[in-house]
Amino acid sequence: MSTPQQLLNTVFTRSREAHDVVSKYIHRTPVDRSATFSRLCGCDVFLKYENLQKTGAFKVRGALFKVYQLVKKGVKGVVASSAGNHAQGVAYAASCFGIKAIIVMPETASIAKINATRSYGAEVVLYGKVYDDAESKAYEIADRLGYAFVHPFDDIDVMAGQATIAWELIEQINDFDVIVVPIGGGGLASGILAVLKTVRPRIKVIGVEPENAPKMLVSIKRGVPTTITPRPSLADGLVTKRPGELTYTIVSNYIDDIVTVTEDEIAKAIYMLLERAKVLAEGAGAAALAALMSGKIKVEKQRVVALVTGGNIDLTALSRVVSKGLLSEGRIAKLRGSLPDVPGSLKSVLEVIAKYRGNILDIRHDRYDFYRLPWYATVEILVEVPSSEDTKRIVNELRNRGFEFELVE
Amino acid sequence: MSTPQQLLNTVFTRSREAHDVVSKYIHRTPVDRSATFSRLCGCDVFLKYENLQKTGAFKVRGALFKVYQLVKKGVKGVVASSAGNHAQGVAYAASCFGIKAIIVMPETASIAKINATRSYGAEVVLYGKVYDDAESKAYEIADRLGYAFVHPFDDIDVMAGQATIAWELIEQINDFDVIVVPIGGGGLASGILAVLKTVRPRIKVIGVEPENAPKMLVSIKRGVPTTITPRPSLADGLVTKRPGELTYTIVSNYIDDIVTVTEDEIAKAIYMLLERAKVLAEGAGAAALAALMSGKIKVEKQRVVALVTGGNIDLTALSRVVSKGLLSEGRIAKLRGSLPDVPGSLKSVLEVIAKYRGNILDIRHDRYDFYRLPWYATVEILVEVPSSEDTKRIVNELRNRGFEFELVE
Repeated sequence: MSTPQQLLNTVFTRSREAHDVVSKYIHRTPVDRSATFSRLCGCDVFLKYENLQKTGAFKVRGALFKVYQLVKKGVKGVVASSAGNHAQGVAYAASCFGIKAIIVMPETASIAKINATRSYGAEVVLYGKVYDDAESKAYEIADRLGYAFVHPFDDIDVMAGQATIAWELIEQINDFDVIVVPIGGGGLASGILAVLKTVRPRIKVIGVEPENAPKMLVSIKRGVPTTITPRPSLADGLVTKRPGELTYTIVSNYIDDIVTVTEDEIAKAIYMLLERAKVLAEGAGAAALAALMSGKIKVEKQRVVALVTGGNIDLTALSRVVSKGLLSEGRIAKLRGSLPDVPGSLKSVLEVIAKYRGNILDIRHDRYDFYRLPWYATVEILVEVPSSEDTKRIVNELRNRGFEFELVE
Repeated sequence: MSTPQQLLNTVFTRSREAHDVVSKYIHRTPVDRSATFSRLCGCDVFLKYENLQKTGAFKVRGALFKVYQLVKKGVKGVVASSAGNHAQGVAYAASCFGIKAIIVMPETASIAKINATRSYGAEVVLYGKVYDDAESKAYEIADRLGYAFVHPFDDIDVMAGQATIAWELIEQINDFDVIVVPIGGGGLASGILAVLKTVRPRIKVIGVEPENAPKMLVSIKRGVPTTITPRPSLADGLVTKRPGELTYTIVSNYIDDIVTVTEDEIAKAIYMLLERAKVLAEGAGAAALAALMSGKIKVEKQRVVALVTGGNIDLTALSRVVSKGLLSEGRIAKLRGSLPDVPGSLKSVLEVIAKYRGNILDIRHDRYDFYRLPWYATVEILVEVPSSEDTKRIVNELRNRGFEFELVE
């Protein structure tokens, strides 16, 4: 049984080799100071764009180093279970080293993820309703074929592979005060802690979990790895039931703090990364910035790195996030009012909306509103507006013209 | 009057100084080989991400070098007219060199652009209904205050500034066979031609214009700069009425070819850049990749650079592009059919949809359909599905159960 310090040292030592190996197969992703987010967060914000990484997420780093080690030992194939970025990471890694990969996914996995995994040459097996079924199946397949099972986080080489982000950051911006790291199983946080607490012990490492899946926070509070019942989250990559044994040991001993973020905070960060930084982040990839923007981390005037860990968000989910963002920014407004049910009355309302450059997205009439006078209809209008100021002008002018309308908020 | 070769040489010479000056104030944007787009286009595709540039677009390069030159000459302020990326570029450049900037925008400019320009410290003047009005006003203000007017493209220093992209590319990937460049006024294409036709004459430079605004193509065909009547385009940054005199001279003499892209091709490229490359491009920024994906450029097995020139797309426009992309990829389907207007019939239909993991977005009943039997209602259901295969299964099972439904395409 090794001590936490020995474990940290092992990951640190292997991370140097990992850096040499992994960098041949991946993008050196950009890290940029963002003027916009610096202003919003009151500190120097540096974003590290692992969403622009091969396979769209940092997970490929750990997978590459693990598969490299396995190939050195003569392994002919690997098996993993994942409906997420680990699947694509292992598939890509296996293709780099010319061995076979079998990825077991729950039957509910999205077509996009299945196709992406297949596109790297892996065989995809759909099995069971939930992740646990797929994992059991993966172990079974690995046993039967003599392949190695690649765990998504609780593995020294996987942690050492994720740690290469820290080496890259040191080369790219050398010194900083704080780094904010999302925690799913804890592999990324462990790798980063191993490097930074050894060579830059001054740098604070802050973990982020969704409020809906705070397994590491709960485990640390109880003093032992604990299984929680997570709720669904936009940050699906961080929805894990339980930290690993190894990752718990490192994270609980070395992390400076863990904060949680709400679904609204995650959605807002996705929206802002898209609008301001022009990049697509998945929920897990936006969590670190969400934590920074929420003000839950004390970072005033410091140099802070937020990892944007991945960009594999389903575009139907993105579409919802954008619609909600436009609503909450007042770029789309819902107006509700009552109209005399006679010719020309809707036309008059639309004249006012057009005058302030509002663009109609939808109109619904409701003639079954119990509380209206019988010759009035309730009308709901969804409208795109230049700004929320224009919405106020529209509502005011409608009222001045005798139409009872209000903004639905 | 200088010859085209002399003009090219002048831009080339200044571009070297521009590279030294400009690089201090901007991001060195990443250029990555994209495995996905390489497979789709049958060549090695390298994407240069100027959407991740300061201000969200390459325009800041030309603005920086021009403003730098003006400051050297003692100018105290600059004026520009633009509702687009030039506005933010000039505003940012003026703030870098500590001089005043006044940007005239048409009254119809979007709030987002106005706010972004103000955030760099510029004064925004709203004037007139169209660009031409704003431009006249800008000249008038410049005259009155003794400020310099900064043209968006027809200017040697602006072209030399845009040319710095070519120098960066040479440093980043050294050699390539083809570069695809969107053409608005022609400043970017002129700058790139000046560098590449001098130091890498072997590299083909291909211009791209929207089918809706082919001013350079028309001008070259007629042999003289020609004013066209452009139609609106998703690539609003490329909607210009007429090339510049200088840019026409360089582009018409040195460009290898110009191709045009349709609105659908531009929309698809925006969608694909988001889904696959995880970056947000505006229409103009997606045009080069759109041209490559359309197969209109002969590039088989070559090393091809596509410039992603900017990312400043309004998120309401993006929302439409994404919705349309999801529809055309079959991730959202519109089903139409007729239902007996009796209790329980809609429920039966929804059971079938739920069975194949379809998620209802909208349901509309139409009881006024002339062609239906009176006890039937027309029902239109908008549904999110895992894949178009599932849509087929849903429609088949509905028909087997006696419901006449079809996919609306």
